[in-house]
Amino acid sequence: MSEDSVVRPRAEAAVTLRPAPGGRIEGGFWGARQQVNRDVTIPLGEERVRESGAFANLELAARGAGGEHRGKVFADSDVYKWLEAVAWERGRAESRDLARSYERAAKLVESAQAPDGYLHTHTQLTGRARYSDMASAHELYCAGHLMQAAVAGRRATGDDTLLRVATRFADHLVKDLPPDALDGHPEVETALAELYRETGTRPYLDLATRMVDGRGREQLPLKGHHGPGIRQDRVPLREATTVEGHAVRAMYLAAGATDVAIENADSGLLDALAHQWRDMVATKTYLTGGLGSVWYGEQFGGPHELSPETAYCETCAAIASVHWSWRLLLATGQSVYADLMERTLYNAVLPGISLTGDRFFYVNALRVRAGANPDDRRSAARGRQDWFGTACCPPNVMRLLSSLDHYLATRSDDGVQLHLYASGSVRAGDVLLQVETDYPWNGRVEIVVRETPDHPWTLSARIPSWADAAVIDGEELVPGDYHRVRRTWRTGDRISLDLGVRPRLTVAVPRLDVARGQVAVERGPLVYCLEQTDHPGVIVDDLCVTADAALRDGTPVPGLPSEVVPVIARGRAHAHRDDDAGFPYRTATAPREPEHTGPIDLRFVPYYAWANRGAGPMTIWAPMH
Amino acid sequence: MSEDSVVRPRAEAAVTLRPAPGGRIEGGFWGARQQVNRDVTIPLGEERVRESGAFANLELAARGAGGEHRGKVFADSDVYKWLEAVAWERGRAESRDLARSYERAAKLVESAQAPDGYLHTHTQLTGRARYSDMASAHELYCAGHLMQAAVAGRRATGDDTLLRVATRFADHLVKDLPPDALDGHPEVETALAELYRETGTRPYLDLATRMVDGRGREQLPLKGHHGPGIRQDRVPLREATTVEGHAVRAMYLAAGATDVAIENADSGLLDALAHQWRDMVATKTYLTGGLGSVWYGEQFGGPHELSPETAYCETCAAIASVHWSWRLLLATGQSVYADLMERTLYNAVLPGISLTGDRFFYVNALRVRAGANPDDRRSAARGRQDWFGTACCPPNVMRLLSSLDHYLATRSDDGVQLHLYASGSVRAGDVLLQVETDYPWNGRVEIVVRETPDHPWTLSARIPSWADAAVIDGEELVPGDYHRVRRTWRTGDRISLDLGVRPRLTVAVPRLDVARGQVAVERGPLVYCLEQTDHPGVIVDDLCVTADAALRDGTPVPGLPSEVVPVIARGRAHAHRDDDAGFPYRTATAPREPEHTGPIDLRFVPYYAWANRGAGPMTIWAPMH
Repeated sequence: MSEDSVVRPRAEAAVTLRPAPGGRIEGGFWGARQQVNRDVTIPLGEERVRESGAFANLELAARGAGGEHRGKVFADSDVYKWLEAVAWERGRAESRDLARSYERAAKLVESAQAPDGYLHTHTQLTGRARYSDMASAHELYCAGHLMQAAVAGRRATGDDTLLRVATRFADHLVKDLPPDALDGHPEVETALAELYRETGTRPYLDLATRMVDGRGREQLPLKGHHGPGIRQDRVPLREATTVEGHAVRAMYLAAGATDVAIENADSGLLDALAHQWRDMVATKTYLTGGLGSVWYGEQFGGPHELSPETAYCETCAAIASVHWSWRLLLATGQSVYADLMERTLYNAVLPGISLTGDRFFYVNALRVRAGANPDDRRSAARGRQDWFGTACCPPNVMRLLSSLDHYLATRSDDGVQLHLYASGSVRAGDVLLQVETDYPWNGRVEIVVRETPDHPWTLSARIPSWADAAVIDGEELVPGDYHRVRRTWRTGDRISLDLGVRPRLTVAVPRLDVARGQVAVERGPLVYCLEQTDHPGVIVDDLCVTADAALRDGTPVPGLPSEVVPVIARGRAHAHRDDDAGFPYRTATAPREPEHTGPIDLRFVPYYAWANRGAGPMTIWAPMH
Repeated sequence: MSEDSVVRPRAEAAVTLRPAPGGRIEGGFWGARQQVNRDVTIPLGEERVRESGAFANLELAARGAGGEHRGKVFADSDVYKWLEAVAWERGRAESRDLARSYERAAKLVESAQAPDGYLHTHTQLTGRARYSDMASAHELYCAGHLMQAAVAGRRATGDDTLLRVATRFADHLVKDLPPDALDGHPEVETALAELYRETGTRPYLDLATRMVDGRGREQLPLKGHHGPGIRQDRVPLREATTVEGHAVRAMYLAAGATDVAIENADSGLLDALAHQWRDMVATKTYLTGGLGSVWYGEQFGGPHELSPETAYCETCAAIASVHWSWRLLLATGQSVYADLMERTLYNAVLPGISLTGDRFFYVNALRVRAGANPDDRRSAARGRQDWFGTACCPPNVMRLLSSLDHYLATRSDDGVQLHLYASGSVRAGDVLLQVETDYPWNGRVEIVVRETPDHPWTLSARIPSWADAAVIDGEELVPGDYHRVRRTWRTGDRISLDLGVRPRLTVAVPRLDVARGQVAVERGPLVYCLEQTDHPGVIVDDLCVTADAALRDGTPVPGLPSEVVPVIARGRAHAHRDDDAGFPYRTATAPREPEHTGPIDLRFVPYYAWANRGAGPMTIWAPMH
């Protein structure tokens, strides 16, 4: 079992919390998802990456005799993200199959590297001049994913094959990358910072710092109808007050900038990033935690531009958002960051993969309406897909799930902090905690002290901001902060936390126009939705929640795992009238009360589980009448 | 004064109504717009077309020695649409300047034509094989606009220069166009039908018929993330139940298919088209009449997918919608088509051009929110533009405004039908009517019989569907139909129609989720909006209309023409609270009444007039509280 962490600030870094490197998820909600990831998704990933030609590209590059590159310019990154997933998974539990897959691919990567350390098969095979198309070639984007896979390999398995490749590449970049070069797709910044953390080679951090500071000066060439903001090149990060442009790129850059701020103890940069994060949460985040509301350019819209239907909410953006929030959590110790991480993991990352682990959403819309254009390839009505031509999301989910253990808890001089609740254990120095819970289905979390030093320390447990009925050992808790218990703990001590998971109705601020007059259902950390399959005889688009919704837990849903708790609400369906077939606007002066069916029970299911019984009309927001 | 029409079905065509070829707008609302079109927009168009290189392309093609083509593949069409506008304008009133501009450009077009009749400067200059890229090259799209300009030239001025060019081209197409060839951008179908009407050359109609029937068989190659629907190539028109894909292309094709159905007396095709029109109106039309809700692909979304913010509502789509509705009106005589034409002209075409006539919207959003991303080139917050790289819209507005006289009225064996109300006169055979009105500001329309035969005939006047308070000579009228008066008229007879123009609140059907809990303001045929500039100290996004809105006409608005009548409504503004700066979603169980400012007067202005005092936040829909 690995006792290392996906993010490991140096001793001198400006952080409030440090990762607790011995988190381990065992069973429960997330354990089941990790098992599927290990048994189905990661092996499938190897197959799909092979079929895409990404291994073949490396083989051709290794031979050095040219050849046709297959797939996208960033095909190498699929290999690296999958390798990172395998590495963390081996750290969770070694297996001969995983080790063999890993070592074979790592050697292949090593063999493809140019003598001077450069590695990017598309450039190597096409013969394009290196660094001649920084805006689009993705050379450094791929380098970043290589570095992250290398660090994972070292930390989780001790295997240094990729670390050698990554450091050679990084050394080459430090030496030969053109001054001021920036990649159109940020990602190398956070990777260089972590490689620095792993190796202590300061020039890696300096290069990352230079790239973070160089951003926002309209240096990259423009593309399509987009301005420089699409690539985070409009406003320097220190001056920016919000996030903008391509959501995945924005999040990777923000994560890297936060790494840089932490390692350089640069409080000015950190403050700017924290401000951007708060603005993002207040004005550009979906209820699910999903990011990016504009399909064209996969980008953030303006403030409160959050259409459920055109939601882009790329799975990768959600994953990168978790990366960023975790770094800000380490820096500040504030629970808001863990709140968003949890919301995002359950409701923006997890919907990206089927319950069976073998089908994927790239775009995570919050609404699919009835009668969607069958020709519309934007539409989530098409359901999850086997794989994608641009296959960034599936291996990204793999590496996040296999590294999820690292995000459970942190430590500080004062004690241990629990941020995410999952069945398993947490080691932090000479403290070992066991966590027993059926969360998120049940709010009860038992924390048992298995090992403890013989002096006082503080156990901090996050009380999510939605948990207005949380109690700990009978005491009412304040939501939206950590509940802290300081004492000299004894082995066998036990804390009974109950987060008060129960269904609730959620509304939005008035400026969020697309949610006006509507409500959503949540339960614990889960956002729920209405699916067509649960409402035969009526159209999801016509369903509304009655003011006396009387939310209650439902019985298991056929076709979903039995532990999934649906929420039942009182509702009605708008009944279509003949004149609804005409012009859909009418004068309000002679108000016509919409006609409804009689009361019906609406069944809300967790959004992450939607489209596992066929895809069809779905909505998170429903009108209240 | 021209006495001909933009659409002229043949004697044997299956139509209920025939154009009244002597419509003439004089003064009033539309007369003022036509004057600006003549004095400012059309001369500016010539300059912009010259600057774009479109004339230079024709000169190079004329020389036949090759050379670099400038602008888009469809640059020729800008010349043709501008020429069509000049032709109709010369028909309205001849002028030496217009005649000189027209003749010079027409001769230039003629000189560029290949000996066998082919004409498409991009293909001629690049040397690409003719008809080798039907999906994208726009050869027939340009041919169609040439034919329309040619027909306009003949009908409005008697000048046959372009008609010779167009018939040579059409003869070449009949002879040499590859069998089954379809253009990616429909438009030639309606043009061929009209050229047939003008010349009587039946093979032109047969070619148009073949193209209409060939559509919808997945013949055109796919493009980007789009399926065949983007180019109306998924479902044959006879089988389609709705409109889909690129909105402008869909509308031009539908207009052409209606021409074909009319001339072939093909009731099956006509019924299918009428069904598609009704579905479009019921599920895919904005309150403004605007069409196309999806930015990506400039296309229709699914039913009720009508986001005000991402509204594409291309000016050209609105113009083509007017073309289609007019043809269905001729075919059926039903007032619903004229209703949509009027709505579209005022609220979807007219916003595309500034009051000064020299700036243009390509995309007509129904909402611009505060804090829109300054980098977002989609945003209407950037205001109208001088011109566009793809300059389809500006000359399209020019030709529609200069041909608007043709859409006022029709005739039938039974009499004369007035569809649009504008100050001016209508001649239909031996009937001459004079119309005196300040419409749309005032609902009073005086219709004076100036010439009449000495036998009974029916005067039909459209009562718009919104006009629930219309009276004629004191008698209450039924909205949404024609009011018919049959008698033996005498010169000097006068009818006093009052359509009861007054401000009203408008709501949408429940399925139209983006309008839930919200209202719009209309007055007569005009849709209104809230602009930021009229509401200092508050943000438009925060404004709401109170239930007791007490709408009333306001006093003239500084910065807008004095005849523009604003509407004043009682409203309030949501007051932002400190906690609004956090996560924008909250549990509804402890309802918090939104806090408001005290009562304030909201000033609604006509949507077509927005962004003439600077662009900024704007909305058509506002919440009602």
